[in-house]
Order: sequence, then structure tokens, then C-alpha cells
Amino acid sequence: MSSRFTLFNDPVHGFVSVPKGLVLELVETPEVQRLRRIRQLGLGFLVFPGAVHTRFEHGIGAMALMGEALDTIREKGTLMDVDEIDGARAAALLHDIGHGPFSHTLEHQLLRPGPSGRRFHHERMSRALMARLDRRLGGRLAMALAIFDGTYARPFFHSLVASQLDMDRLDYLRRDSFYTGVAEGVVGVDRIIKTMRVHKGRIVIEAKGAYAVENVLLSRRLMYWQVYLHKTVLAADHVLRATFARARERWGTDPALEHTAPSLAFFLAEEATADDIDPDADHHDALLDAYTALDDPDVLYSIKRWTESHDHVLADLARRFLDRDLFRTTPLDAPPTDAQVEDWRARTAAWLVAEGLSSRDDAPRDADLYVATGTARLAAYDAASESICILQRDGTVRELSQAADAPTAGALEARRERAYVCLPKPVAP
Amino acid sequence: MSSRFTLFNDPVHGFVSVPKGLVLELVETPEVQRLRRIRQLGLGFLVFPGAVHTRFEHGIGAMALMGEALDTIREKGTLMDVDEIDGARAAALLHDIGHGPFSHTLEHQLLRPGPSGRRFHHERMSRALMARLDRRLGGRLAMALAIFDGTYARPFFHSLVASQLDMDRLDYLRRDSFYTGVAEGVVGVDRIIKTMRVHKGRIVIEAKGAYAVENVLLSRRLMYWQVYLHKTVLAADHVLRATFARARERWGTDPALEHTAPSLAFFLAEEATADDIDPDADHHDALLDAYTALDDPDVLYSIKRWTESHDHVLADLARRFLDRDLFRTTPLDAPPTDAQVEDWRARTAAWLVAEGLSSRDDAPRDADLYVATGTARLAAYDAASESICILQRDGTVRELSQAADAPTAGALEARRERAYVCLPKPVAP
Amino acid sequence: MSSRFTLFNDPVHGFVSVPKGLVLELVETPEVQRLRRIRQLGLGFLVFPGAVHTRFEHGIGAMALMGEALDTIREKGTLMDVDEIDGARAAALLHDIGHGPFSHTLEHQLLRPGPSGRRFHHERMSRALMARLDRRLGGRLAMALAIFDGTYARPFFHSLVASQLDMDRLDYLRRDSFYTGVAEGVVGVDRIIKTMRVHKGRIVIEAKGAYAVENVLLSRRLMYWQVYLHKTVLAADHVLRATFARARERWGTDPALEHTAPSLAFFLAEEATADDIDPDADHHDALLDAYTALDDPDVLYSIKRWTESHDHVLADLARRFLDRDLFRTTPLDAPPTDAQVEDWRARTAAWLVAEGLSSRDDAPRDADLYVATGTARLAAYDAASESICILQRDGTVRELSQAADAPTAGALEARRERAYVCLPKPVAP
Amino acid sequence: MSSRFTLFNDPVHGFVSVPKGLVLELVETPEVQRLRRIRQLGLGFLVFPGAVHTRFEHGIGAMALMGEALDTIREKGTLMDVDEIDGARAAALLHDIGHGPFSHTLEHQLLRPGPSGRRFHHERMSRALMARLDRRLGGRLAMALAIFDGTYARPFFHSLVASQLDMDRLDYLRRDSFYTGVAEGVVGVDRIIKTMRVHKGRIVIEAKGAYAVENVLLSRRLMYWQVYLHKTVLAADHVLRATFARARERWGTDPALEHTAPSLAFFLAEEATADDIDPDADHHDALLDAYTALDDPDVLYSIKRWTESHDHVLADLARRFLDRDLFRTTPLDAPPTDAQVEDWRARTAAWLVAEGLSSRDDAPRDADLYVATGTARLAAYDAASESICILQRDGTVRELSQAADAPTAGALEARRERAYVCLPKPVAP
Repeated sequence: MSSRFTLFNDPVHGFVSVPKGLVLELVETPEVQRLRRIRQLGLGFLVFPGAVHTRFEHGIGAMALMGEALDTIREKGTLMDVDEIDGARAAALLHDIGHGPFSHTLEHQLLRPGPSGRRFHHERMSRALMARLDRRLGGRLAMALAIFDGTYARPFFHSLVASQLDMDRLDYLRRDSFYTGVAEGVVGVDRIIKTMRVHKGRIVIEAKGAYAVENVLLSRRLMYWQVYLHKTVLAADHVLRATFARARERWGTDPALEHTAPSLAFFLAEEATADDIDPDADHHDALLDAYTALDDPDVLYSIKRWTESHDHVLADLARRFLDRDLFRTTPLDAPPTDAQVEDWRARTAAWLVAEGLSSRDDAPRDADLYVATGTARLAAYDAASESICILQRDGTVRELSQAADAPTAGALEARRERAYVCLPKPVAP
Repeated sequence: MSSRFTLFNDPVHGFVSVPKGLVLELVETPEVQRLRRIRQLGLGFLVFPGAVHTRFEHGIGAMALMGEALDTIREKGTLMDVDEIDGARAAALLHDIGHGPFSHTLEHQLLRPGPSGRRFHHERMSRALMARLDRRLGGRLAMALAIFDGTYARPFFHSLVASQLDMDRLDYLRRDSFYTGVAEGVVGVDRIIKTMRVHKGRIVIEAKGAYAVENVLLSRRLMYWQVYLHKTVLAADHVLRATFARARERWGTDPALEHTAPSLAFFLAEEATADDIDPDADHHDALLDAYTALDDPDVLYSIKRWTESHDHVLADLARRFLDRDLFRTTPLDAPPTDAQVEDWRARTAAWLVAEGLSSRDDAPRDADLYVATGTARLAAYDAASESICILQRDGTVRELSQAADAPTAGALEARRERAYVCLPKPVAP
Repeated sequence: MSSRFTLFNDPVHGFVSVPKGLVLELVETPEVQRLRRIRQLGLGFLVFPGAVHTRFEHGIGAMALMGEALDTIREKGTLMDVDEIDGARAAALLHDIGHGPFSHTLEHQLLRPGPSGRRFHHERMSRALMARLDRRLGGRLAMALAIFDGTYARPFFHSLVASQLDMDRLDYLRRDSFYTGVAEGVVGVDRIIKTMRVHKGRIVIEAKGAYAVENVLLSRRLMYWQVYLHKTVLAADHVLRATFARARERWGTDPALEHTAPSLAFFLAEEATADDIDPDADHHDALLDAYTALDDPDVLYSIKRWTESHDHVLADLARRFLDRDLFRTTPLDAPPTDAQVEDWRARTAAWLVAEGLSSRDDAPRDADLYVATGTARLAAYDAASESICILQRDGTVRELSQAADAPTAGALEARRERAYVCLPKPVAP
Repeated sequence: MSSRFTLFNDPVHGFVSVPKGLVLELVETPEVQRLRRIRQLGLGFLVFPGAVHTRFEHGIGAMALMGEALDTIREKGTLMDVDEIDGARAAALLHDIGHGPFSHTLEHQLLRPGPSGRRFHHERMSRALMARLDRRLGGRLAMALAIFDGTYARPFFHSLVASQLDMDRLDYLRRDSFYTGVAEGVVGVDRIIKTMRVHKGRIVIEAKGAYAVENVLLSRRLMYWQVYLHKTVLAADHVLRATFARARERWGTDPALEHTAPSLAFFLAEEATADDIDPDADHHDALLDAYTALDDPDVLYSIKRWTESHDHVLADLARRFLDRDLFRTTPLDAPPTDAQVEDWRARTAAWLVAEGLSSRDDAPRDADLYVATGTARLAAYDAASESICILQRDGTVRELSQAADAPTAGALEARRERAYVCLPKPVAP
């Protein structure tokens, strides 16, 4: 009565088979179970109420797509052994294990650059956690690590884990579209996977899949502007960053901060920097322990406790975040001038005083927290790095932007930039 | 450039129009925003990874379906005014506002029966919170309250909010089916709503919708057995209850419990009973404050802190919950005999000692926490209370079980019971 | 650059892989291509405008589900060889090849019972056509025929082709639900297939799939009442039968009938009876040629030509069918009495005369064509024949109605009957 | 028990309400019912088996979307009266009533240019049929005609019926994507409609809908290349055109052609030219009668009869079409040179002789029918005609290609051309 698979119900891909053995063991580790408590889209649910899906589902989904891609590739004559299949599935499952809560917003707040100046990259953290799992599992993740690192002898496995058309992207576009209800993000994942093959050692897409690839890239761009960089998401992002910046400023002096979750306190107390993530070291266990303990509930709980602060600014920012009483994001035609920024700061400072949030002395400095300018940037496709290759009907291979016609290639590669400012509503332009 | 509606993207119903004015103001209250932090299916996500949707979405969805139902009813000639429409939509939005985190598991743990012996009902809490909102809004919820209470002169509005075919059920079946990926739960919500009308002052379903109604009832039964009462959900439920029971036992003595979130501590310290929810009283603010502060993150944070307890049993239960290292549920052909239960307890006690979780003295009492027996019960339809009425093609009205043929009616009304036992895996049968 | 599969885009199941070799060759035969010109639901599109899907798609779909079922079964340890897999897929593809246009309405009109009194069964025709294909393919369908006939040594293959839970049913319920837009028909095909296994030589469903099976049976019942036996479908059916009956009466005398498509003329001229379908004979080629030439366009074209008849009755019936100017179906509480039928006939005859469709002399006999009474009958499940078996968690096997609780089993097995009458609208009750 | 609407089950849009009165009466006319017998994608089902949907469904869908668009527009403050609403819905329902079977392939074969040299346009035929319906209905289509013609005083109604973002396109992209199973065609119809408004008398899209509009245009381009201009669709198109060209050549001399359906014979006998479609004349009834009698079954029936021709070429082409034994389409890097075409013709002529299809004398001329070259052309968007306008957040209006960034606008407006050749497989490059 046994089966070699355990079934998961995934509303996006249907029944997903998780092979027993290494992959199922990994799913059951606390490191992977933790991803059930980390939302995939961070703050996205504040605009798209259904977008509360977690990184756990996404990891399972990427692992499932990896299985389908490998089936297709083998069916077309590229042989592989069980070790490679398990390793590739494990790498897909674990590729995002290093993400923290509200990742794109918080990660850089949690682990600031150290002496080397190098910034936090979640891939390094994923790598460090995979290495720790490997030690715990007695080296059984060696293949997964080699594939993840890109050091394995057959590089096409790495491309399926990390490239412009990897299982990560195919899953997250399909999944985020499903949960946000944004139809434009729907992509032909099936078609792309079914038209993959290995040609001269690398992944190529057969010509009949080329439009589906273009569509994925264009849909991804659209999801960025419509979802990931939605102006209310940017506003929430700003409020969350400002809240953390204030908490850091007041760390050690504000009694409300003593109620911060310990995993979060570790980072706010600046006990570590990005330099401390050494993927190959054994000796950074305190950092990894704190990081794997940290999840959305710890952050939300802490912010709720910070609303009790006697510091009006911290309390105001924390309450705004919890009650979704956010700032307003205004798109700008061009990056703001210094004069504009000065004007916004001055008006914000005046408003802070009027609201009783800041004293006249503190207001100018506090206003810095309430005024955020930024530029959202995106190119749908980068032909130069890890480019996508199309296998033409005549047997030749062309890089995507060469296979597409010129205007489409231009649109895919063009870098779009959009400046914006986030301000409290009474002050916003 | 104005519109009378704000649009929400709902992956289930598509674009949902939220009317500006009363309804949108309610959506923006902290009480409703809190529902973003409470999962609709509580522990369901431990089995169905996608089922992480929140009570917020469900409230919006029920409100949207109410709008569609009222449109249909008006289109067929039943007049109503703006006040009634707003009131009905508000009542649909707020109907579940009184749910707490992991509701069906925890609610009875949070507010135990008081002197009257009356148990907690979330509807009473919803009523109390609606009354508080009404006071804050200067009486603008009077109509919503009357509809919710069933005291309004046109009772069909109440049926749309609370009956065997209300907007709550239609939304949650459709939504839970969507997020779990369980196809069997898909129901013809559109058909049912489009075949509603008011006949002699009450809601009836036109004959052509009768099969869709049968299907809703049968699908609901199926969702219960397959999702809500799934054996792993029951196991998670057991672990969570046991964790809370242990925390209560050790309240005031275990230092790890001092880190419990304040909102939760309020209830564990037994500062209130179910009797204290007085829907019409002004004086229970501490209770309501604690209740509306309580959310999933507070519970998850607290349980995480409890893993640090020096009480092995509390630490073990808390860790099991977090890492999804659950017990095993075994279905039983009949409710267990006393001898069976004694045997399970004895074997569990022995196992607790062997694992080092309990001393030989404490083991028998501790075993009580680790052994749970229960009976899942369900009838798809109750013809006796708030029955569903079908408008026949000849103009007469029949109660559903009279309109259906006898065997179907029998299947709908039959009460099914299933006994089970939850035990640690090494001890389970 | 080769692949062992050709991909079909199926809106219901997504990409479907058709294995090259026998199965793809079969798809390309004129016999199978003909199914592209035969609608799966016959007259259903007159009520459900989207239900214009064809038997071709359904055959491909059943073949695809067979592939998935065999994958699941093998994965659980039941070995099978390529010959068996191809045979089973071929049998699933071809199982409905013997259906003619508007099958359930017309088949019995085309091939009346012969001397033996045996009625037409499309399975016999499928068998005869498969045998012909087998001869053409030099015996390569031997395994498919044995599986189809149920004579193959491993009977579980036959169960997947013809039983109460075969690939035919699973595909058509899912597909008809998709194209009609009737949500109630959505069934958990994936779940059922993933819970199949072979146990002691026969197909069983694991306990966790039992609800999905119940749901399939209940959904099928619902699809019957809501779609297949919809009252307007019954009315269209009546008009089509009456048209054919009239054409038969006037065959050889009415010049308009000379324009009938030759394939159809073969049958209307009564050149063959149901007895002539001899699955094992070589000598009935004229019959098979005519049958495989016959398709929806031939029927529609012929009926259009019949509108030119000088026989008012034939012209009226043919026009009604084309322009969807149908009769009215009235459900009856009980089968009609002779007196009722007489009354309807008399009133219809009077109406025919008033409309100028019949002379006073012919009217009584013509009225027989315009009055149809009938009884729609359905049981969701028949426990006695080809019963469905559930593998309990304790390893025992129970027949479905024994595994379900009593009221549900009762509802599944109960036979429902519904009498009705179809009449021209001015005469209808 | 009455309702102002009749409900249609549409698998794409769900329940569709068809208002009783003018619109429902139009649905029930033979002209509109005829659309049930004309497939929307003509030959598309030969590649996408599910794409058998009809122009009837599409008309209903466009009418339904029109209703939603008008609801949105009114809700934002643009008043309109019942006459306008009915007229706009009627125009949307009837906009494609002038399409014939396999339209883009056959229309130009059926009605060749007359003395004026003007080619057939299906819009002129739609207009002529609408005018005829208007006369039959006593002038009740006056508003629909004015909206369709663009002569009505409020031009935004016309834009909803005929522009680059009209209800026609929104419905067909969504619908064709649904039935082909091509995910890339999924578009955010809801979002576009919900962001429409009337600004200074014309339709604009609010800024938040701009990405959805870009997506529609890009998806449409993708549907063209992937579906409408799929190489096997082009091959089927070629076979069908060649069949008709041969039938025309042999008209009057080949006895097999005497069995051609009368409606089709009317056109093959060249009894009319494109000049005879005079939208305002009363005297072209024979033409309109033949045209409205013509449908897919008439064409399919006729082609089946042509397989009996003693002309090997006609018989071969007709059989190829029926059995889907098509030619091969080969994409070319550039339009072919005369020398290339000569070579293909010569090799095809030799093959025709070898196959016994042509005599040595006839082969060169017959080869013309078997060799087809062409160029598929497409621009996603034409900024110059009926441009799409975006209402910016600052209240100004910009034409879409001005509102988008330059590379995207470039990609949208770029005209892509693709040369190809269709040849019998043994001759194909």
C-alpha cells in the first residue's frame, strides 16, 4: 500500500507529487516549515487582499515545476540519474530559504553592510542555510549545493534554478497572478516547460515556445508595475522602513522596544552585519538561529508592541502600518530636485508639529523619516547575462533578442525608470 | 473623475466594488483591518498549503455577494432603499468580525463559560463589536444591527445574512475550495444568486436553481469531511488545544509564559468569561480591547516563546505545533470504550517517561493532554430551522426536503458521526 | 530534435501528450477525424451556447486520462508493458468511435431493430469500426480490442475503459461542465486518478478518494437533470425525432427528400437494421461506409433542404429545428393518463388545421408527431454491476455503497423518474 | 414571477443577462441563430481541437460586455437613456452578423470584386443584414444602425462597437484564449472595462488600466502568431482556398459539383459580386437570402460531395481538407524570389504527375493550386486611426503610444511581416 510520492494540494498546479526520501525530509525541516509563516509578497496583501500566499507554497511549486522540466528534458533524450534529479528538485525547493519576513523591505534593514561594504543578498543566506542543512544531513545536499552554486559539471541544471527563465520565475509569476487576481500575469508555464530541451549542454526553448517566453517577460514587467511596485505597496514599504529606522534610532532607550521579539532584537541591536553570512563557515550559528527564528508573526507582533511607545513618532508609524493608514505615493515625471525635497521636508515638519507628533526642535530630523523619494527601475530582459536561447526550426540557436524582431527586443531590454515620492496625505502633492 | 465605488481585486470573485460611504469606512476600521491577520481556515493551511486566506477577504466577498443578491432581487420587482442596501452590505461585511485567531480551536479556550454556563458564540462577539462600531459611528449601523439581529421588519434581509443559504456560506464554500484546490467544493454561486427572489416576504429559490442548492449542501458536507475535519487538521487542532491547556495550567508559575502576547495573556489569566460578552453593554471595554488586539501573529509569537519553557511538556507541544510535527488521528468504527482510552493513556504515559518529557509521577496526568478522542458530526441540511424554500414552476413554495426526492432529502438531512482518536505517532494504533 | 510525443492543446486538461506510433496513427485516421464533425452533446448547444465541443476532443481527453491513470498505477507497483499501455490508450481513444451525429436522439432512428429485435447500441458500432481499423492496421489493435471486449487476462484495463468510474465518464463530466459553464459538474478528476491503484487484480480507490467518487456520482446526476435532460434539450430532441419520423414516412414520395445527404439517405431508406452490425464480420462495408460518412453537417444540410418540402408538416418541423423555434416541455407529476394524451392530441390536431399545416383528415395522425410524452430516468450509481471498490485504511475492500453511510448510498442508488410532455407552445399546458 | 432578463450560461463570462425586448427578439431571429452554425475561428479547430466555438456565442459575449461597459460609464456620471443602451447592445450583438463560414478564408472567394474593384468587407454585409432586420422590425434598429455607422451624435457609443479596444476584441481575445487553451491570450477584460469612462465625449481609459491595455494589444499580437496565423492553420487555409478555386474552374462541367449546397452554388456560379452588397438597397434579396442560408455545414457537406469528383485534383483537395491531410507551411526569411517559386512549381508539377493527379499537360497549371506563398502581417496597434486614449492622473489625456514609454510604444506599433510557402509535404523544403 505504499507510494513513492506524497501528494500536496496546490491550488495553482493541482496535485503536486513530492518524492519521498531527501526532498520530503527537507520539506519537513523547521527551516522549510518556517516558510509557511513568511508571505511571498510581503506587503502586497495590503493592496491585493488575496495575496497572502507563503514562500512555502512557492518552494513546493518551484520544486514541482523542476520535476516537470526534468521529465520533459529526459523524454527528449537527455539522460540523468536519480542523484541529479533529487539534487535539482532540492535546489529548487530551497532556493529561497534565505528570505526573511517582508524581504525586499526589511532584509537590508536587518543586516546592514559590514566592513567590506557588501550588501545583504538573500542568495547568500539561502546558501548558508543549505550548507547548514547539508551538514545536518551528512552531506546529502552536496549535489543540490553544486547545482545551486553553478559548479556542477552539467550547467543546465543550474540554469533551471537560477536564470531569466528558471523555475523560480515561472512559479512566482503564475502564483502571484493567481493570488492577486491580476489576469495579465497569467503565463504559459506549461508551454515553456514542454518546449524546453537540452542542446549542446545548455537549456534552449524550441521555436514554438518563443512567443510564450516573450509573454513571460512582458507579463513579468507588467506584474512589477501593477503589483510589486504598486504605489500603495511602495507606500506601505515606506512606512515599514521608517518604522524600523525609528526603532533602530531608539534602540536601547525606549522601553516599548524591550518587548520586541528576540529574533528581531538580535538584528536591531546590530549584533551582525551582512559580512557575517559566510556560506562556508560553521561558526555563525547565533546569526543563523536568529534568522531562522524570524518570521512575519515576530515582525507583526513587535510592531504591535511598538504602538505602545511613548515616542509619538514610533507609535504613529507602527499604528499606521497595522491599521493600513498609509502615506500617499505620487509619481514624478523626473527625479525630484533638492528644492522640491526641501519643500516636502519643511511642510512635513510643520505638519508633525501641528499633529503633536514632534517637538519644534525634533521635527526637521523626524521629517526625514516621513519623506521618502525613490525610483522604481525595471528591465524585462537582460540579453547580456544568462540569456535565453531559442532553438530555431533550422537547428541553429539564437539568443532571444536576436530571435525576436527588433522592436520587441527593444521593448524587452529597455530599462524603465519611474521616480516617486511618498508623503503623509495632508502634505502630499 | 470620481466614482461611487472603490475596486478590490479578489481572485475569487474578480473585481469587487466597495461602495464609498458607510461600507468603505467600515472596511478601513482597525476592527476590520484586524481580519487581515486572521486566517479563515485557522489550521487548514497545515494540510492545504494554499489555504492561507484571511477573514478579511471573506468579509469583502460576502459583502460583494450581498450586493449581487440585492441587485437580482430588485431586478425582479422587490423595491428597497439605499439605507437597506447599505445596512445589508454592512451586516454581510461584519458578520464574522467576532472571530478570533484559530477560531474553532481557540475560542472556547479563550472565553470559558461563566456562571450562567453559557458557552462562547462568535456571533455574540460579532454583535458586541458591531454595537461598539455603531456607537463610534453615531448610530449609523442601526439598520445593519437590526438586519443582523433579525429584528428588522423585512426578514428576508436577515436570511441573506444568516441562514442555510446565506452570503457567508456561499462565499466561504467558493473561497475555501479555491484556496485549498479541492475541486469538489466548487459551487454554482452565480446560479443560486441569480435564481433568488423575494416571494411573500421571504427568500425563495426558483425551481431552476434547486439542483444548485442541493449541490451546495452536498459540497459543503464534502468540504467538511475532506478539509475542515481532515484528520491532520484534527491532529493540529489537538496539539494546539493541548498547548493552550498546558499554558493555562502553568499560568503564573512558568517564566516562559511571561513573554505571552498581552492580548492573549488577558484571556489565559481568565480575566473574563463568555458571560462578559454583553452585546448591549458599554462597560466591557477591556475585554473588547483585548479581543480586537488578538490575532494570528500574537498566538504564533506566544507559542514560539513557550518553546523556551523549562516545562518539557509545554515546550514539546509548542515545538510540535510550530514545526508541524503533529500527532496521528485514527478513525474509529465506534466511540472508544473506557478500556481503550485507559490503554492509550497508559501507553502514552509510558512513552512520555521514555522520552524524558514527564516524570513517572506526572506522566499519567500529562498523558491526558496527549490523548484526545472526539466525534466529528455533520448534517448537510436541517429542514427544521431556517429551511430553504423552492418556488415551484406552478407558483407554490416547497421546503427543500419536500421539493427534492426522498432519498436525496434523506442524504441531506442524515447526521453523520465519526469517532476518532489523536495520539503521538509512536503510540497510535 | 525528435520527441516521442506530439502535443495537443486541450483547454480542459492543458497540454496533452499523444504518443507517436499506434496512438497518433489512429488519431490521424478518417474514422477519428470524423469525430471532429460530431458534437459531443448533440443538441445541448441549443441551451448551452458554449457546448459545441466534439467527440474528437473527448476521445483525446479520455486517452490522456488513461495515460495518467496508468502512470499512477505503475508508480504504485503494478507493472505493465508498452503493448498494454498502447492498447489501453487506443481503447480509450476509440471507445466512442461508433457514435453518430446527435447520437442519443438519432441512433435508434438510423438503425431500427432487425429480426432479432435487438436495439442499436453504439458500443457494438464502436466494436465493428475498431475491428475494421484492426484489419487495416494488420492486427495492431488486438490488445485494444481485447481490453475493450473485457477478454484480456488483466481485467483492470477493461475497468478503466468501461465501468462506472472509467476514463470516459471522468472526461465527459469534466469537459461538459467546462463547456456548458455549469459549475456543479466540476469533479475532482485528479484526485480520483491519483487515488487509484490495482489491488488483487482490480481497480480500487484509496479511502482518501472516496468523497471525490461520491462527488463524481452526485455531479453526474446533477449534470443529467441540469444539462443532458434539460427541458429545452428534450424539446429539441422531440422536434428532431419528429422531423426524422416524418422524413421516413414520406421517403420515396417527397422530392425534397431527394436532396438528403447520401450517407443519411442510406439509413432512411432502411437499407440496414441494427442486426447488420456484426462486429466480427467482414461483409458489411456498405453499412460501415455510410455510417462513417455520416456527421453533423450531413444531418444539418439535409434538414435544411427538407424545409423546402411541399409537405407542410415536414417543412414546419425542419424549420423549427434550424431556427430553434422549439416546442415546450412540461414536467408532469405522474405519467399522463390516456385521457390526457387524447386531449393533447385533439387540441394539437385542431391547432394543426388552424395553422394550415394539416388537412382536417390528416390532422389526427399528424398530431402524433407533434405530441411526445416520455419519462426521464436516472440512478447515479448501480451497486450491482461493475461496482466501485474502496480500499479502506485497514486494507480491506468495500463496495462503494457499503463504504458510504446508508443515506448517501441510498441517494446514490435511488432511481429517479420524471414524466413530461412536449407540445407546440400554443397547445402546451 | 417575471424577470426583465433571460439568462444564458456562457462558460467564458458566466451567467449573461439578455434583456427582454429588442435584444432578445434579435437573438431569436434566423439571422442570429444562423451564427450557431458558423465557427468563430474557422479552421482553427484543426490545430486547437477545443476551438469549435461559434459566432453566436461571441455575439452574445460582445453584447454582455457592452452592458458592463455601459454600467461602468453610467456609474461614473455619464447619463444615457434606454434607447441608447438597447441600441448599443443590439449593435454589439449584430456587429459580426455579416460573417460567412470560414470567413477570412472564403469570403473573398464567395463574392469577388465587381466592376468597381472594391473587395468584400464583412462589415458591409453586417450593415446590409442589419438594415434588412431594421425593415422587418419596423425601424426599431435605427439607433443600433446609427451607432454602428458612427453617425450617432454621441460618438463614444460607436467606439465601443468598433475601435482598437471595442467589445468585439475584448470578447474574442478572451474567448479564443479560453477555447484554444492558449494561456498567453488571457487578458484583463474586467480591468479595462472597469477603468473606462467618457471624458469630453470620448472613451478614455483611466491610468490604472493602461498596463491592461498594453497587455491586450500584446496578447492580441501573440494570439495572431500563435493561433490565427499558426502554420497549420495557414496550410488548412491554403487547401480550402485551392479546393474552392478548383471548384470554380470546373463549375458547370463537373457533375460532382451539381451536389453543391444551393446557398454555396449561388456564389460559385458568380451570380453576384462584392458590388452587389448595397447596404441601403432593398433589391438584393436573392444575394442576402443565399448568404444567410450559407453556413459551415453547407460548406462541409459540399466539400464531402466533391470528393466524388472524377477530377483527381478536386477530389484530392477535398479529401485532404476533410481528413486533415494538409500541406506543410515553411516560414521564409524573405519573400520568395521568382526562381524559388518556379522551382517549387516545377517540383510540384512533377509530383502531381507521379501521383497520378495530373496529366503531364495539365500539371504545370494544376501546380499553381498546390503552391501558395504569402506574407502574414500584423501590427499590434495603430496610433493613427481610432487611437486609444489614456486619462492621466493629472486629468490630461494622452494617446496610448504617448502614454507608454518609447520602446513599448515602438513594439506595439511595429509592423511585423513573415513570408511563408505552403506545399505538399513531399515537395516542401
